[in-house]
Amino acid sequence: MSSKPIPMAVIGAGYWGPNLVRNAVSCPELDLRYLVDLDLGRAEKISAPYAGVTAVQDALTVFEDPQIEAVAIATPAATHLPLALAALEAGKHVLVEKPLAATWDEGRQLVDAAHAAGRVLMCDHTFCYTPAVQEIRRLVHEGVLGDIQFVDSVRINLGLVQRDVDVLWDLAPHDLSILDYILPEGCSPTAVAAHGADPIGAGHACVAYLTLQLPGGAIAHAHVNWLSPTKVRTTMIGGSKRTLLWDDLNPLQRISIYDRGVDLTDAAAVDAEDRRQVSISYRSGDMVAPALKEREALGIVMSEFADCIRTGRAPLTDGRAGLRVLDILEAASRSLEYAGAVVPLRGRR
Amino acid sequence: MSSKPIPMAVIGAGYWGPNLVRNAVSCPELDLRYLVDLDLGRAEKISAPYAGVTAVQDALTVFEDPQIEAVAIATPAATHLPLALAALEAGKHVLVEKPLAATWDEGRQLVDAAHAAGRVLMCDHTFCYTPAVQEIRRLVHEGVLGDIQFVDSVRINLGLVQRDVDVLWDLAPHDLSILDYILPEGCSPTAVAAHGADPIGAGHACVAYLTLQLPGGAIAHAHVNWLSPTKVRTTMIGGSKRTLLWDDLNPLQRISIYDRGVDLTDAAAVDAEDRRQVSISYRSGDMVAPALKEREALGIVMSEFADCIRTGRAPLTDGRAGLRVLDILEAASRSLEYAGAVVPLRGRR
Amino acid sequence: MSSKPIPMAVIGAGYWGPNLVRNAVSCPELDLRYLVDLDLGRAEKISAPYAGVTAVQDALTVFEDPQIEAVAIATPAATHLPLALAALEAGKHVLVEKPLAATWDEGRQLVDAAHAAGRVLMCDHTFCYTPAVQEIRRLVHEGVLGDIQFVDSVRINLGLVQRDVDVLWDLAPHDLSILDYILPEGCSPTAVAAHGADPIGAGHACVAYLTLQLPGGAIAHAHVNWLSPTKVRTTMIGGSKRTLLWDDLNPLQRISIYDRGVDLTDAAAVDAEDRRQVSISYRSGDMVAPALKEREALGIVMSEFADCIRTGRAPLTDGRAGLRVLDILEAASRSLEYAGAVVPLRGRR
Amino acid sequence: MSSKPIPMAVIGAGYWGPNLVRNAVSCPELDLRYLVDLDLGRAEKISAPYAGVTAVQDALTVFEDPQIEAVAIATPAATHLPLALAALEAGKHVLVEKPLAATWDEGRQLVDAAHAAGRVLMCDHTFCYTPAVQEIRRLVHEGVLGDIQFVDSVRINLGLVQRDVDVLWDLAPHDLSILDYILPEGCSPTAVAAHGADPIGAGHACVAYLTLQLPGGAIAHAHVNWLSPTKVRTTMIGGSKRTLLWDDLNPLQRISIYDRGVDLTDAAAVDAEDRRQVSISYRSGDMVAPALKEREALGIVMSEFADCIRTGRAPLTDGRAGLRVLDILEAASRSLEYAGAVVPLRGRR
Repeated sequence: MSSKPIPMAVIGAGYWGPNLVRNAVSCPELDLRYLVDLDLGRAEKISAPYAGVTAVQDALTVFEDPQIEAVAIATPAATHLPLALAALEAGKHVLVEKPLAATWDEGRQLVDAAHAAGRVLMCDHTFCYTPAVQEIRRLVHEGVLGDIQFVDSVRINLGLVQRDVDVLWDLAPHDLSILDYILPEGCSPTAVAAHGADPIGAGHACVAYLTLQLPGGAIAHAHVNWLSPTKVRTTMIGGSKRTLLWDDLNPLQRISIYDRGVDLTDAAAVDAEDRRQVSISYRSGDMVAPALKEREALGIVMSEFADCIRTGRAPLTDGRAGLRVLDILEAASRSLEYAGAVVPLRGRR
Repeated sequence: MSSKPIPMAVIGAGYWGPNLVRNAVSCPELDLRYLVDLDLGRAEKISAPYAGVTAVQDALTVFEDPQIEAVAIATPAATHLPLALAALEAGKHVLVEKPLAATWDEGRQLVDAAHAAGRVLMCDHTFCYTPAVQEIRRLVHEGVLGDIQFVDSVRINLGLVQRDVDVLWDLAPHDLSILDYILPEGCSPTAVAAHGADPIGAGHACVAYLTLQLPGGAIAHAHVNWLSPTKVRTTMIGGSKRTLLWDDLNPLQRISIYDRGVDLTDAAAVDAEDRRQVSISYRSGDMVAPALKEREALGIVMSEFADCIRTGRAPLTDGRAGLRVLDILEAASRSLEYAGAVVPLRGRR
Repeated sequence: MSSKPIPMAVIGAGYWGPNLVRNAVSCPELDLRYLVDLDLGRAEKISAPYAGVTAVQDALTVFEDPQIEAVAIATPAATHLPLALAALEAGKHVLVEKPLAATWDEGRQLVDAAHAAGRVLMCDHTFCYTPAVQEIRRLVHEGVLGDIQFVDSVRINLGLVQRDVDVLWDLAPHDLSILDYILPEGCSPTAVAAHGADPIGAGHACVAYLTLQLPGGAIAHAHVNWLSPTKVRTTMIGGSKRTLLWDDLNPLQRISIYDRGVDLTDAAAVDAEDRRQVSISYRSGDMVAPALKEREALGIVMSEFADCIRTGRAPLTDGRAGLRVLDILEAASRSLEYAGAVVPLRGRR
Repeated sequence: MSSKPIPMAVIGAGYWGPNLVRNAVSCPELDLRYLVDLDLGRAEKISAPYAGVTAVQDALTVFEDPQIEAVAIATPAATHLPLALAALEAGKHVLVEKPLAATWDEGRQLVDAAHAAGRVLMCDHTFCYTPAVQEIRRLVHEGVLGDIQFVDSVRINLGLVQRDVDVLWDLAPHDLSILDYILPEGCSPTAVAAHGADPIGAGHACVAYLTLQLPGGAIAHAHVNWLSPTKVRTTMIGGSKRTLLWDDLNPLQRISIYDRGVDLTDAAAVDAEDRRQVSISYRSGDMVAPALKEREALGIVMSEFADCIRTGRAPLTDGRAGLRVLDILEAASRSLEYAGAVVPLRGRR
């Protein structure tokens, strides 16, 4: 491609920002010009080793620079709305850290604003761009797993106890964005229930369990936990044909596809009083661990962002995807308040 | 001990019965005389290699033999009440397979009948007699873990889909009996919520999640699943001082005790408008895996049963423990019916 | 099969004998009548639970009982020759614990005696009868792995330090008998070197490394160790087409077959001074873990023994296989004495 | 420290060079000014994102720049001697990639030249600077493990088959430098034997086994392999008091210290004919996994290099350490040529 790299800025030099900076610098389609942070010293320290990146304190500098075409926002969720809105209004394309915004309503405003401005709004659902999740999506969409019967996610480790958000809003966006990404369209969750606990007195849930109803009697569940001394990141996806286990902490065998499961065959009812007779059989076939490339997901996020700006197509994880995740998070929070009550979802629109 | 071994019978030669037979034969304090099964051929085949064990078809033979002092019952749960009741009325001591009975009311009748007859009623909560669970109980009761903050159990594998019971009643009794055994008295669960799915059309839940409220804001959770292609049996017990991970499928390191966690220190509120200030700190100390003996739990069950008969003391897992497990199972079933509603427990009595 | 079970005896009630007893009792083709041990009390204790098994102190009782057709010998290696010879001379079929005998010469005598007597001589190379090793042999013999390039075995754990044999003679027979079983005929080892250490002062090697030269530039290596606090039992078999990893302590995935490796293509030498040009390419394909049945190997050993007696065919692990293992063990011992010198093998005859 | 960062250059932009560049840039005590590579385009590409780093083609530019005080050399081993020698003669401090040089004699020249020039000569034995190896050294030197009885290293994976060096020279320097670093002084290896194979026809060994004799009957062994489809990096260090297992691919539990082992007690010989009576006992105590910091080793290498330049002290892995590794590598190569013959070492000087 002979086109010039896209001039861009990163806003936020906190936990995630430096990763965005590093990957923007490495991405040949992008040309990082600014790193913005209220803490100018921090922005300067992070940007210092890189040639051509200026640290600034005020995002306005970026919005007002007509050369800048795109911004990536990695600030606290509460600030996503004003920053992203200002960026869109200034005609910039926007990549936003997860979650898309602090509430579904705010997220909605961003989606509408991007639509009105004709600009790309992409949500940085990083895990969706890992080779593992790409492969899982392919396997699900091509029917290799059959109908999805259950999804079980565990994402636990000794995490940083956040002051502004609970463990649901901190960790579950990963699982929910992955779920949104891999499930076929007709398979989106319809309702959610959440149970949580704050046994250390942090002021909000540090351990939480989320149950999602899926169409057709299927179920999805996520366990997120800041208090676990060991790190676990697994997702099991049970299908009618195959069951897949993704263990993100096992680089030598991240994905295992098992040809093991339970099959039920309908047999004719013997007489009217009989309940449906089912004949159960078990498959215990081989397991296959497909070869995966090792690529840094955030690098692919950057390429996707650049490519969508170039071509005008919607990102794989666009604002709408971010909105669907917010829908579940909000419902889950309400469920937590009401002791685990089942809360229906808005769903896809 | 010079006393003679206790003459006993095993009723039920199905899945679990042969294990009871093998361990009763190996236990020097017991003298296995009968194996009872409606399928006499099966009883004969199982008992054939053993000297001195007679296969019979009718449990009445056992109840009417005045030499028999004890019976172990390993039949379907629906038959526990009549069989155990008849045994107690015939003056036999009784060891019953889990769950104690098909309902809490039936279990209550057994507890009362054993009390009235002055006979031992023991529930075969086998896992409680593993060296691992014995060690966990010790660590919890001696305060090594501190206050219990969360308990997370996973018991999943490609299990036999049962026709008469769902996955909750099939697998959760293990986790619930272990929980009952290790938690200190004041720490018993107060309410339960359950979510399940039957994605294969088996007629009842094949995947289920159980959330238990514990006093003081703590939480316990169990994932039971018949559809998982891999086998997982882990329990994590988070405490204010230490967190313990029990991985029953790792014989080289079943128990790991982590000195890692989150500590909160209350700091004085600066002014009236401030929310409570908490100062968070993280421990990341060593991990210790205590040496455990390798002993077959069922052998210890047999010794415990014999010892309680000899001494008249209550078994570590007596009828009351079995009743508490039934309490939770019944409440969980009701919760499943009502889409995850929180159902309070009867609790200890 | 309507034929009567074969009356047999087990000689030796030490470490392995009880396993032979249990499996002989469970095998419908065999009829265990005697358990022999110089320590009669021990023989009585082991045989007590089983109907129809008599404990005796003198093997002569067995040899002189004309009804007994077969014996299984599980005594120290030094006694294999006199016991097995007497048994063969008395017309019994013989199953001998590994190693076949204390020396190659003694083993040779047994093979000759069995041949002369027209009786079955089988070596209890138990691991060869595991579903895993059966599958490995099949994969090697059917060419799925391609040409064997390297074999690497590790068999280490906190083992019982033996007084009469070193770690080589205690543990390596397992690896060597497996190697003998899986390698195609033309692929037998041609020479061996061994290095060992006795860092605790036990009087002989407690840690040893064995290197075997295989035809065609291939290599096999075994690490045996009594001093390791953890247990490892792995064998990797590198082939020109696939590489297989057998992890015997991972029941959920004992065998993994990797389509990963290095391929070399010869390219024409450009000119006379050039060294041979090789073009290297790497395969990084999928991994497949084949489904394996879970069966106790010793039960299959018993069936094989019975079947060979019935049909007169040679056992899969016959005396000659035992002899080939002794050949390597003796050469390895000589190598140990001479500080790792390479010692050629007698090889197949 | 208020002193100015040390102006330096990196020579070599191949496989390892970019890591040196990244860590030099991040190290506040160093000021990276040049990246040198014969392939100027490559040097330019690697240095482009970093401010203040100039790509040059000729190392002479660096040697002649009087401001440059230090160079890090990451070129093929055959070029270490001329480059490092020129650097030292130009008065620069030198950090050299492993192995120190292509031969022991060349390494010796470098050590002598550095001594004569009064400059720092450091060998980049990166693994020695990992928190894990630092902890192991501490545990060994403080006597926690007791006397070292055996060391067993495995370093295998599908590695790049090198054209200029065999697997021994490619991978074993890691294990040998670690061994050199952790063993107490009196415990250095005295002789080596090596066995290897080239089953793919690469022109030199692709699989190799190295056995080292240690004083007092102890043994060390390393398995290095380019053909393994899975990656293993473990080192077990058996001591008279504790045994340690280092699994570098398990970030959650890199080091496990087992209080398990075999103890021998000498007992008085009962009479003259008796062999020495030894009484064997087994310890099976707890396992402890110490908490380790996660730090990038190469960052610590850079700090160590800078600190040695500042203070004039010898690096933890100085030229002499690199020389001791070369001593073993050369002896191992000779052993390979002579089919595994034991070759004595020059040892410490």
